Amino acid sequence: MNTRWYIFIGGGSGPWRITGISSVIGESLPDASYLDVRTGSTVTLPSGAVWVLKGATSHERYVTREEKQRLASVQPPLGRAEATLAALIPVKKSDEWWQLPQDERRAIFELRSRHIETGLQYLPAVARRLHHSYDLGEPFDFLTWFEYAPQHAEAFDELVSRLRETEEWQYVIREVDIRVQRIEQPA
Amino acid sequence: MNTRWYIFIGGGSGPWRITGISSVIGESLPDASYLDVRTGSTVTLPSGAVWVLKGATSHERYVTREEKQRLASVQPPLGRAEATLAALIPVKKSDEWWQLPQDERRAIFELRSRHIETGLQYLPAVARRLHHSYDLGEPFDFLTWFEYAPQHAEAFDELVSRLRETEEWQYVIREVDIRVQRIEQPA
Repeated sequence: MNTRWYIFIGGGSGPWRITGISSVIGESLPDASYLDVRTGSTVTLPSGAVWVLKGATSHERYVTREEKQRLASVQPPLGRAEATLAALIPVKKSDEWWQLPQDERRAIFELRSRHIETGLQYLPAVARRLHHSYDLGEPFDFLTWFEYAPQHAEAFDELVSRLRETEEWQYVIREVDIRVQRIEQPA
Repeated sequence: MNTRWYIFIGGGSGPWRITGISSVIGESLPDASYLDVRTGSTVTLPSGAVWVLKGATSHERYVTREEKQRLASVQPPLGRAEATLAALIPVKKSDEWWQLPQDERRAIFELRSRHIETGLQYLPAVARRLHHSYDLGEPFDFLTWFEYAPQHAEAFDELVSRLRETEEWQYVIREVDIRVQRIEQPA
């Protein structure tokens, strides 16, 4: 049982109703009506699964101690009652990105694209969990899950469009934006 | 087919004869006579497999541009005819390590433990391929594969014992040292 693995299943059942699937860069994902989110490595897929995306929560790749502390002081938990909207954004970066050494990826990610700094401006409105898929042989390298209340939907759109304008995003070769609405209370 | 996945199989067959399996830190692995190395995600295990360890070659986690260039200029390829000895060293690090932010892991890894600098001193004698397992739900976090000629066996022992004395190694909670000898020519 791997408790760091999360499996996102687009299909005919799940606690989240899919309100839109759109391609931002490259190929989209097939239409599906509901999203289910499971953990662990031995998941039995429900009948009606249209696509399955897997990622693992993992160690921090870029943040410094100071950034980690600032994030920890403001980031909200997932599962807040008011956060009835969510987004799953799978992203794949180019081979060119992955072949850059660590110092150059960090410089693009934060010094020039301000990924952490921009994200901080939308906390605590937007809760977030990042899943890594690059080493898992998956079609995407990252799956980011965001939860927010309806009154922050516009702010969330602003956040993702600001990130998409950065130098970092020039290395993104596929991105899909999946929006969902909660139909069940979180457990 | 995931060409970045490598599967190391200890059992009754394979091109490498196992000459020793020893625990360095924590629990060892069961005895086996031969080591087989496969790639891809759909491997049929041979009968007689005693243990199976999986890892993915991946992007660099710590090296800078300058270090990457120095490494590239001296590191030898795997599969050299004279490199008839090899070692597979699976390592698991503590949760404490993985919860450190990137800048502190880098400082321990290179600034204080000189992991890259020490490794460079044993090039081109020792060829190496690093496999990441932390996100794969595996029992170890890294599998490092080394190949060297018999006349460099002593130097290789010195390299691993120098690394084991570093501050970085204080975060290692399990390490097994598997030594093998080639019984077939590389393909």
